[in-house]
Amino acid sequence: MRGAVLHGPGDVRVEERDDPTILEPTDAIIRLSATCICGSDLWPYRGIEAVDGPVPMGHEYVGIVEEVGRDVRRIKPGQFVVGSFFTSDNTCEICRAGYQSSCIHRTVMGSIGTQAEYARIPLADGTLVATPEVPSAATVPHFLAASDVLGTGWFAAVAAEVGPGKTVAVVGDGAVGLLGVLAARQLGAERIIAMSRHEDRQKLALDFGATDIVAERGDEGVERIKELTRGLGAHSVIEAVGTQEAMMQALRATRPGGHLGFVGVSHDVQLPGDELFFSAVHLHGGPAPVRRFLPDQVELIAEGTIEPGKVFDLTLPLDEVAEGYRAMDERRAIKTLLTV
Amino acid sequence: MRGAVLHGPGDVRVEERDDPTILEPTDAIIRLSATCICGSDLWPYRGIEAVDGPVPMGHEYVGIVEEVGRDVRRIKPGQFVVGSFFTSDNTCEICRAGYQSSCIHRTVMGSIGTQAEYARIPLADGTLVATPEVPSAATVPHFLAASDVLGTGWFAAVAAEVGPGKTVAVVGDGAVGLLGVLAARQLGAERIIAMSRHEDRQKLALDFGATDIVAERGDEGVERIKELTRGLGAHSVIEAVGTQEAMMQALRATRPGGHLGFVGVSHDVQLPGDELFFSAVHLHGGPAPVRRFLPDQVELIAEGTIEPGKVFDLTLPLDEVAEGYRAMDERRAIKTLLTV
Repeated sequence: MRGAVLHGPGDVRVEERDDPTILEPTDAIIRLSATCICGSDLWPYRGIEAVDGPVPMGHEYVGIVEEVGRDVRRIKPGQFVVGSFFTSDNTCEICRAGYQSSCIHRTVMGSIGTQAEYARIPLADGTLVATPEVPSAATVPHFLAASDVLGTGWFAAVAAEVGPGKTVAVVGDGAVGLLGVLAARQLGAERIIAMSRHEDRQKLALDFGATDIVAERGDEGVERIKELTRGLGAHSVIEAVGTQEAMMQALRATRPGGHLGFVGVSHDVQLPGDELFFSAVHLHGGPAPVRRFLPDQVELIAEGTIEPGKVFDLTLPLDEVAEGYRAMDERRAIKTLLTV
Repeated sequence: MRGAVLHGPGDVRVEERDDPTILEPTDAIIRLSATCICGSDLWPYRGIEAVDGPVPMGHEYVGIVEEVGRDVRRIKPGQFVVGSFFTSDNTCEICRAGYQSSCIHRTVMGSIGTQAEYARIPLADGTLVATPEVPSAATVPHFLAASDVLGTGWFAAVAAEVGPGKTVAVVGDGAVGLLGVLAARQLGAERIIAMSRHEDRQKLALDFGATDIVAERGDEGVERIKELTRGLGAHSVIEAVGTQEAMMQALRATRPGGHLGFVGVSHDVQLPGDELFFSAVHLHGGPAPVRRFLPDQVELIAEGTIEPGKVFDLTLPLDEVAEGYRAMDERRAIKTLLTV
């Protein structure tokens, strides 16, 4: 099969890879309908995260089940399925508490690489969720978004305790931040402040339900959030970047007793204990337990209530994956969908 | 009046200070019945926290109201009252959300200094809670504990989402950690693991409701907690120290999706973002909003349900404050009560 492989910083290629096969009786093999490039794929692509020799890329996926192992019960060949970037048994104590991304049997889909024609999905029953029917081509991007960025933005909003009557600030205008806006709207937030300097992203944020845009960042951005909240800060803040600046901006924009949900993969962040202490803010985040939210989100997408696939503003065939990375790296695209 | 003043590291003296007077119409003046020395008083006493010239000491207090300003409505002369180390109006949006320690009008009682015969209490109506009657001498220590350490341990337990069915680990065996154990028991925890190497403190922890003692600390301590929780970590962890080692021990002892409540005043702590991210732990803490818990705690103490004053294992007259600090600094005493 053909699949994307990263050879070094800036050097991603589509090349021939071995077809996946069932290795464990709980595996499934899917034929990808579409896949995409994640903001977190840019860290190794930019050389900020070191890679050890050529590595397969991609951890977001939707597709048709081709084959299942002998212990797979719920998932059947022919179904259209969505899964998360961590596999999960969905039965252990941690999964049952809603933290499937920390499942005691989890594996990392990134090491399998879903920017490819086929993929092996371990723990298929606990990882995959089937849609009611095989979706139209127009709906596929929305389900694909549910594989990571929708669930991640949603988890950030839940971690930030977004709800009716709350003012929410969103730090980060990538796909995850934008879908954090969408989630905040769905969760009933009263006011949603998107922090963005880019006109196309501001527009999408407003389309997803943002009520205010703040273009300033850093301390200035914090001051603007304070001005909009009678000096107190937002009740709920979503952090969807992963840098020191973004985390401090998010922490300082949250009122005492408020909640900060952080989902940007943390890079070289050190949180000063004294500032965290005196902030009196609740912190929660990490790799989103996307699987927790999938059944509800599949339903919301199938019935047309939400259209998270709008974050894909560039569609390319898998063979042009290199241009997809470049476009995101240069911020010409929010998120690239790859047709397979 | 006589009051304790810190002149430099290790040099605390009782000397003549000006009698306090009503400065604002919302002030009250109280005559202290008892006061005490806090673990956090040891930071400046040890010279770890710099002090700028002679400073009055103490922020815990119970006493009889002598006089109130003309705008004080609820609090009346003759009442026995308990208050917190931050004053609060108890009416602003932050107070109403339960974060009186971040009240928009707060002042710090530590700058007033309650290791003294009298003290001015700003925002008396929002800060002080009166007991049903003037308590017996034997009950005074329990109310005094409610002024800081009980509320702080309780807040840590609430921040750690302690509740029925939960396994709780407590890092720190000072007065706050021990009262975190008491709070966890009151909040219905199933299992309470106190981490302590000191026999007297272990005994008090068991008396307050601990079900297990772990003497190991650091990575070894974390391993023991994992062994006691089928490899998963505790649901709820209370951190009551404030050092890097204690915070990391607490973070690593918490299961994914679990809750860490931290109340040790943070000193030179830097939380690594990547470890925090992948831990998937909830973090909440800071200066405890003691005032939130005071009305309930005053009731629990008055009816004899809890006896938090057991943390005082040394009682000295105010004039011997220097010996009180020394005993705590050398860990000969858990907490020193000063009679006035």
